[in-house]
Amino acid sequence: MAACKSIVDYEDVLKTRSALPRGFRAGSVALTFHPRELPGDKLYRMNLSLIELSDGKGVAAGVFTRNAFPGAPVLLCRERIDGPSIRGILVNNKVANVCAPGGFDDACRITESLAAAAGGKSEEWLYASTGVIGWKLPVPEIDASLPTLIKSLQAESALPAARGIMTTDRFPKIRSVPAGEATVLGIAKGAGMIEPNMATMLAFIMTDADLSREELSRALGEVVEDSFNAVSVDGDQSTSDMCILLSSRRSPAPAYGDFVEALRQVCTGLARDIVRNGEGTSHVIEVAVSGARCREEARGFAKAVVNSPLVKTAIYGNDPNIGRLVSSLGDYAGNNGIPLDGKALSIRLGGELIFSGGEFRISPELETRLSSYLEKKSFSPELKGYPEHDETVLIEIDLQSGTGSSRVWGSDLSYEYIRENAEYRS
Amino acid sequence: MAACKSIVDYEDVLKTRSALPRGFRAGSVALTFHPRELPGDKLYRMNLSLIELSDGKGVAAGVFTRNAFPGAPVLLCRERIDGPSIRGILVNNKVANVCAPGGFDDACRITESLAAAAGGKSEEWLYASTGVIGWKLPVPEIDASLPTLIKSLQAESALPAARGIMTTDRFPKIRSVPAGEATVLGIAKGAGMIEPNMATMLAFIMTDADLSREELSRALGEVVEDSFNAVSVDGDQSTSDMCILLSSRRSPAPAYGDFVEALRQVCTGLARDIVRNGEGTSHVIEVAVSGARCREEARGFAKAVVNSPLVKTAIYGNDPNIGRLVSSLGDYAGNNGIPLDGKALSIRLGGELIFSGGEFRISPELETRLSSYLEKKSFSPELKGYPEHDETVLIEIDLQSGTGSSRVWGSDLSYEYIRENAEYRS
Repeated sequence: MAACKSIVDYEDVLKTRSALPRGFRAGSVALTFHPRELPGDKLYRMNLSLIELSDGKGVAAGVFTRNAFPGAPVLLCRERIDGPSIRGILVNNKVANVCAPGGFDDACRITESLAAAAGGKSEEWLYASTGVIGWKLPVPEIDASLPTLIKSLQAESALPAARGIMTTDRFPKIRSVPAGEATVLGIAKGAGMIEPNMATMLAFIMTDADLSREELSRALGEVVEDSFNAVSVDGDQSTSDMCILLSSRRSPAPAYGDFVEALRQVCTGLARDIVRNGEGTSHVIEVAVSGARCREEARGFAKAVVNSPLVKTAIYGNDPNIGRLVSSLGDYAGNNGIPLDGKALSIRLGGELIFSGGEFRISPELETRLSSYLEKKSFSPELKGYPEHDETVLIEIDLQSGTGSSRVWGSDLSYEYIRENAEYRS
Repeated sequence: MAACKSIVDYEDVLKTRSALPRGFRAGSVALTFHPRELPGDKLYRMNLSLIELSDGKGVAAGVFTRNAFPGAPVLLCRERIDGPSIRGILVNNKVANVCAPGGFDDACRITESLAAAAGGKSEEWLYASTGVIGWKLPVPEIDASLPTLIKSLQAESALPAARGIMTTDRFPKIRSVPAGEATVLGIAKGAGMIEPNMATMLAFIMTDADLSREELSRALGEVVEDSFNAVSVDGDQSTSDMCILLSSRRSPAPAYGDFVEALRQVCTGLARDIVRNGEGTSHVIEVAVSGARCREEARGFAKAVVNSPLVKTAIYGNDPNIGRLVSSLGDYAGNNGIPLDGKALSIRLGGELIFSGGEFRISPELETRLSSYLEKKSFSPELKGYPEHDETVLIEIDLQSGTGSSRVWGSDLSYEYIRENAEYRS
């Protein structure tokens, strides 16, 4: 897909992608509250978003964080997702509802209010949260907002919900791909704290394809590894990551393989959007490792490179400090007891061979070319904040010790990352 | 040790610590060169430092990086360190001599020139380097500087060498502890790229205690785990980390246990100095994990917390974003398949209980106290750059699932870290 030239173009692109599959309605409202854990009386804004299966019934599948302290929403969704009928999912930002006193009960109570207002049983409603860990949900404010939220539901566009689930995201993220007579549409939020060893910050994927819960679950399992699990912004896997796939079953299912392919495109697109929208991302880094002994090892090397603070800051500074690439590979191999043949290893940056035969291949001319390559791949100031482009800093590593390969995406480490994360709650 | 009140005090402190043990001479000179890998003709400064056993003989022991791509100096030192007689160690900064074409031969050739000028055989000389990975050593410039370097040797103070080995360090690091009639004195450099899973950036420890090579080696092995291996600045283990212990054997050895204790104090002191001097360090973070199933697991949890970019940036911002602590623990447990009982876990920040029974214990009053605790623990602007103080942000984690414990030190993640590392080579 060609890069858009301006933010206006991107808004147009979003519109073309936002048509909801048959059988879905979505909406979003905002509320304000004061966290009871904080001194003072400063008000904070929270968005409440809702995706509803308009027939009141559907099926769902999900993958969830492997973090050992999952938030109350993850516990609740894991409990309910295999139910025979799912009515939809409620999503709030600003408060993650993780390890907050009474957090699980609060989430259940809110789905009871939702069921009373929107129909169905409370256990047919899922609930996802993202935001500050430790704060309690503002239950009265949320309850009071539910009627307006339900009124906001419409069957046309996923855009209000895609905007509503954002936290520090720069832009809403929507991907849509047809699958026979059906559609696969996904929205996602995610910026900092992304290392989906299994999952994805928050991603909600809707389809009208008439597939069973088991088929949805299998398809999701097939695509997460190379999509959401292949991106890494800061190496932390959050307490609340989840990817939920909902089906209204209102349209004939395409061939299973065609559905998986459409789902893969949606998930890969969203995963890359998330990296491009990372807090303070100036360069997107793409690391392709081949020749590892197995796929997991290739993934490990690729993540070691893409998560190294020293590699990330060098790329941020448009500095082809290629020594740090080798150092991060050596660090990972050494710490994990993986034999590595330095003489066989080759590394390319932007397609240029920089390391082979155990030695760096650098020269003043190459150094100049690599610097200008990195500059070209950074966001230009006038496009700063503009999410969609195809530019990545490409690092190719061939270990020549097997057939395992893996490709991951990550972001550089910038001043903006520090600012966002030092001041996130204020 | 009480914190010094100003930089003037610290210079005085350094003087009281800098007296070389018997049988040692040390010195340092500067040279300039243009890296052949870079375009243009900009000159870079390199310091060349030398520690010499003035009798021309001594013994040595060392621990080295586990990085799978060790630099030429690490390969050279590993080869020579067990030799029957060691004459000293040459150290350059600015160029790490890692994977540079012909780098190992270059290092050998320089020690040949050194042997010719200062005496002994080339294989009795060790050689350490730190700096940019990938660049070649400027051999002619180094050779030309050796006579001046040898003239600079003196038997009084380790301070010129301690200054000479610095790169982005804020201040020289020297620790000295008596051991019976002998002395243990260490100097170290290290700032970014510190994750000594085994070793320490560069640390050179000198003693006159009459101990055998085997005893030195055993003593060093006993102390590195809780000193150099317990600090972490950015999670990367460099290609060049090493800690070398040299003895002139000129003074009677104390009881072995007394020697180990003195060595432990020197190594722990240097390790903490390194964190305090980390690139852009504003807070020193101390994480004490207890109740793990074993010591390694405790170390793993402690490092997961101290290396989490999200924890580091929150502490930099004086933001008690305690949710991120729990998230990083959960991330580590989840990714490593370690069972963790959230109900049993307790976490204290600055001595205050913030998490127990599976829930956060926070209130507006506690939030205010924690913010002011973090502010108090940051460097005040007037002391910025001043290395020695006893302040740490203390995070205590009790997992209550065993008797394993570990204590690590790390630094926060600041704008200065990004600046240093984005612009390191320029």
